[in-house]
Amino acid sequence: MAKINQDYTNLQGSYLFSTIAKKVAAFSAENPDKKIIRLGIGDVTRPLTPTIIESLHKSVDEMARKETFRGYAPDLGYDFLRKAICENDYVARGCAISADEIFVSDGAKCDSGNIQEIFSRDNKIAVCDPVYPVYVDSNVMAGRSGAYDTALGRYENIIYMPCTKDNRFTPQLPTETPDIIYLCSPNNPTGEAMKKAELQKWVDYANEKGAVIIFDAAYEAYIHDEDVPHSIYECDNARTCAIELRSFSKNAGFTGVRLGFTVIPKDLMVEGVSLHSLWARRHSTKYNGAPYIIQRAGEAVYSESGKKEVKELVGYYMRNASLILNGLTSAGYEVYGGVNAPYIWLKTPAGMTSWDFFDYLLRNVNIVGTPGAGFGPNGEGYFRLTAFGDYDATVEAIERIKKM
Amino acid sequence: MAKINQDYTNLQGSYLFSTIAKKVAAFSAENPDKKIIRLGIGDVTRPLTPTIIESLHKSVDEMARKETFRGYAPDLGYDFLRKAICENDYVARGCAISADEIFVSDGAKCDSGNIQEIFSRDNKIAVCDPVYPVYVDSNVMAGRSGAYDTALGRYENIIYMPCTKDNRFTPQLPTETPDIIYLCSPNNPTGEAMKKAELQKWVDYANEKGAVIIFDAAYEAYIHDEDVPHSIYECDNARTCAIELRSFSKNAGFTGVRLGFTVIPKDLMVEGVSLHSLWARRHSTKYNGAPYIIQRAGEAVYSESGKKEVKELVGYYMRNASLILNGLTSAGYEVYGGVNAPYIWLKTPAGMTSWDFFDYLLRNVNIVGTPGAGFGPNGEGYFRLTAFGDYDATVEAIERIKKM
Repeated sequence: MAKINQDYTNLQGSYLFSTIAKKVAAFSAENPDKKIIRLGIGDVTRPLTPTIIESLHKSVDEMARKETFRGYAPDLGYDFLRKAICENDYVARGCAISADEIFVSDGAKCDSGNIQEIFSRDNKIAVCDPVYPVYVDSNVMAGRSGAYDTALGRYENIIYMPCTKDNRFTPQLPTETPDIIYLCSPNNPTGEAMKKAELQKWVDYANEKGAVIIFDAAYEAYIHDEDVPHSIYECDNARTCAIELRSFSKNAGFTGVRLGFTVIPKDLMVEGVSLHSLWARRHSTKYNGAPYIIQRAGEAVYSESGKKEVKELVGYYMRNASLILNGLTSAGYEVYGGVNAPYIWLKTPAGMTSWDFFDYLLRNVNIVGTPGAGFGPNGEGYFRLTAFGDYDATVEAIERIKKM
Repeated sequence: MAKINQDYTNLQGSYLFSTIAKKVAAFSAENPDKKIIRLGIGDVTRPLTPTIIESLHKSVDEMARKETFRGYAPDLGYDFLRKAICENDYVARGCAISADEIFVSDGAKCDSGNIQEIFSRDNKIAVCDPVYPVYVDSNVMAGRSGAYDTALGRYENIIYMPCTKDNRFTPQLPTETPDIIYLCSPNNPTGEAMKKAELQKWVDYANEKGAVIIFDAAYEAYIHDEDVPHSIYECDNARTCAIELRSFSKNAGFTGVRLGFTVIPKDLMVEGVSLHSLWARRHSTKYNGAPYIIQRAGEAVYSESGKKEVKELVGYYMRNASLILNGLTSAGYEVYGGVNAPYIWLKTPAGMTSWDFFDYLLRNVNIVGTPGAGFGPNGEGYFRLTAFGDYDATVEAIERIKKM
């Protein structure tokens, strides 16, 4: 008699963005005339840039000819892409990462969900609160969370690191020692970023405790301040304690194209075993490589014209971020983030819960945002807006909110 | 202190095809003048067909314009593709499968590796021997295998169903009752296929025992015989016991494009829980959809011209299969498969082990095949050749073997 993975039944509600999508679809069905502005899910809206499009057409044509057709990709990614990543994202920033420490994948969501699998079930994880839901949910599904405490809105066996106004939304070293620490900077959902000295503290702590940091740098392209690191490997000794997750979704707009990568330095050992070798084994057993044409598009991101276009794209979205930040501030809202990240984190007005504010915004001004409570108990009373909308729509959204 | 997943250390050797790739690379480096013919890994060699190429160019252009750009795909796949699959692969064959029971993914290898995750760790799995290594390895990584018995070349807690010459390489109902049963037909590696009456026996058995069948139909496009089912849902009552895995790799040549899907009927319940809902939750938490342009290419596979091109592609490879089958038979080899599948399964000559024969073929005639032992103990003494090579190269390979 087959038996299900009971840990799945320990998950609370459905995946956050699926719930939002269903609520919006229901509202839209009831109100077909309303023009909804979506500043909820962190999905980009600008088209792919000319260099990427040209690269895609070129590699599609290669797939049409016997001489240049490509079948299965190398398990860990094509060398041309791993080298381009290595040169541009690491060597150019003074990070000692080599191309064969880079694992190309179909995106950071898969990697951030799958990476926990190379660790034992009895590791204790620490996450920021609020946090991107995949870190917690993937560990619940693997049986690491313990039971859910409905009163606290937390799992018993997870260490939550509150990120609140009082600590400028920066996690503090926990009192209980974790085995695996998830950090995301620039942060989703708060839009705040860790300075290098702060991140160095975490690296030192992890090395001291024998913990592993899973560092999600999906938003590094949005960093504006000089003292905010783009990679955890800018910190000393990070090679012995940190895994880094990266994405092409938010810099080059690949949310619907799917490309990302994970870095595991070869000297990151746990119980005498190289995590690099475990992740390589997972890749070769359960994954078959990112599509050739998409790896070529990833390579194009690092060309001169590609880099220029990414800069323009990021500039476009950060203009939205400033617009939201300034608009809401002048409308009297308490607002965070939006300087080194495409997310604006605002205090809900008049003590509304964040789901109440979600419904309120959707019904009254037809704007979709993300309720802070969906990211953890300390997200309650907050709300996330993204800068990934169309500029004109964002202008209109802010006008609507101001008139509310 | 972080701890690794010790189950990974229970894996034997590296992933089969990684090992072969390394051996071939080493031989090639030592013998740069030798023209190697690769009939090992089941990778296609024909380019993508005109309809697919046209579809890819068209959707790439859509990604270039703001009005038609697509970001995150729906978690479970675009409706246009799910509907095309449903109509063509199921409704047209009289199978009662609906579009929302289809989960689009980036390939059957990922799905066949990940599907075990929705089941409890203490399920007992049954696999054919020999078998596609991913079924076993992904269960070893999840802790379901028990220890490896070096003498037997088997894991203690896995039920192996011998597929030998004596049973025409068709698995027989096991004496010990399994919870999860992996079946693959047309089979990889033996190239043999189950007739409908045989498969119906398995469906009845699974329903009776409360077991779940994971049916891998990646090679269904190669079926020639009328009495071989293309889908397990052609059998009565399969909706209450079977999950089906499908691929675009071998019909449309998408090995480097990456597209597949899994079917889970909504009435497949285990312990009162719908497996459809568990897999949906996994998809939405750990996966972000297949690329839009690739889902459009998948849709194109089902167009009139797409279907015609797939038929020609399959015909091309099956001409190779006949060539190998006839060539080896006339050279005195004992040969199986190759009629309903692109694989030819041959008895190694003169009592050689399958790895010895691998080395012998590589060194003497520079042909790469796959040693049967890599698929399980009952693969020892056998060898797999694929029909996915170039026709002229396949002709030459057979000439070389005949002269050996």
